[in-house]
Amino acid sequence: MTIFKYISNTFTALLLALSFGSVQAQDIKVVYHVNTGIESAAAALGNVRNHLTADPTAKITVVTHGPGIDFLLEGAKDSKGREFSGLVGDLAGKGVQFRVCNNTLVSRNIDAGKVVMEAKIVPSGVAEVARLQAKEGFVYLKP
Amino acid sequence: MTIFKYISNTFTALLLALSFGSVQAQDIKVVYHVNTGIESAAAALGNVRNHLTADPTAKITVVTHGPGIDFLLEGAKDSKGREFSGLVGDLAGKGVQFRVCNNTLVSRNIDAGKVVMEAKIVPSGVAEVARLQAKEGFVYLKP
Amino acid sequence: MTIFKYISNTFTALLLALSFGSVQAQDIKVVYHVNTGIESAAAALGNVRNHLTADPTAKITVVTHGPGIDFLLEGAKDSKGREFSGLVGDLAGKGVQFRVCNNTLVSRNIDAGKVVMEAKIVPSGVAEVARLQAKEGFVYLKP
Repeated sequence: MTIFKYISNTFTALLLALSFGSVQAQDIKVVYHVNTGIESAAAALGNVRNHLTADPTAKITVVTHGPGIDFLLEGAKDSKGREFSGLVGDLAGKGVQFRVCNNTLVSRNIDAGKVVMEAKIVPSGVAEVARLQAKEGFVYLKP
Repeated sequence: MTIFKYISNTFTALLLALSFGSVQAQDIKVVYHVNTGIESAAAALGNVRNHLTADPTAKITVVTHGPGIDFLLEGAKDSKGREFSGLVGDLAGKGVQFRVCNNTLVSRNIDAGKVVMEAKIVPSGVAEVARLQAKEGFVYLKP
Repeated sequence: MTIFKYISNTFTALLLALSFGSVQAQDIKVVYHVNTGIESAAAALGNVRNHLTADPTAKITVVTHGPGIDFLLEGAKDSKGREFSGLVGDLAGKGVQFRVCNNTLVSRNIDAGKVVMEAKIVPSGVAEVARLQAKEGFVYLKP
């Protein structure tokens, strides 16, 4: 191998390494930030469902805090009396992740056992919204 | 050309290539996410106008869905009875782009012909908001 | 030094330079975008406080415009009659920065002298929200 060939090969490897990040990041990751009450939850979940229909490879995480957690409590119903559990379970089956803020549980005195099994409890909803963007490459959307 | 000179030139070219992305990306691109009704549209468009005054090179795209599309329908008027068409046309003339969600048109049974000519119809408003951020380098703003 | 050694050293330096940006950016920077009235300001500031508790190294800048500036005016009180100055001063002491939109001051005919000393006046709130994201590496959160 000549030295020019060596240099050329090394550059190629370097350029591949540099571009690999963007090549890998083809699937869009989106954090849906939900902190409004149960009356707007059905619309927010409808947005998530439409999003997945338009972009089936999107990775969506719904982070909730404040009144936004209510649709993720056992037995929660929308304004038409339908339980949220069916829609939440359906979206979870499609890969959507749900997060509930522990600060909210504590300040509102809600037992963690009331949170549906599809949702994961995180220490702070707002810190999670920021972390997903800053550290995990998520983009933001407030429905 | 000596081999050192060759290496030096190649490095320079590589570094220029690497920095080119950021050099090009000096103009700020912003997606305005509008999904609230016509009563808040005038304020949102006022934000866009003020934004352009403060940063004339900003590239702004207004993505609408749900009740947010209403100001982009033919004949839409604000709470004072003024048509939106003048302001929308003015902003479009300054390079602002407008998008209307087709899912919303279908679910609300609105004919695509009612959308003003300055706006482009996209399959899904929420997917477009995410795509612009993840793939086109836009930052997010919800007015 | 052999030429191979030279190439190797130069590559190492280049790779270190390339990775340095991400190494430095470990602290999360978040812009809180506040444009709703004083009745929601206490909740927004509660979010900021909880955020810092969960992530004490987070750098938080609260950018306000429209009705969002009201809690940063001298003597502003929440719905329970408590002055905001204590909480704002406390958060400022923890490194939180506050920004008030000059366009709002002008359009609402509010004297700049009424803005509390912890807040800095910027020409345009929306342009500042975009600039912090596009140029300073902030992520977005609307409380």
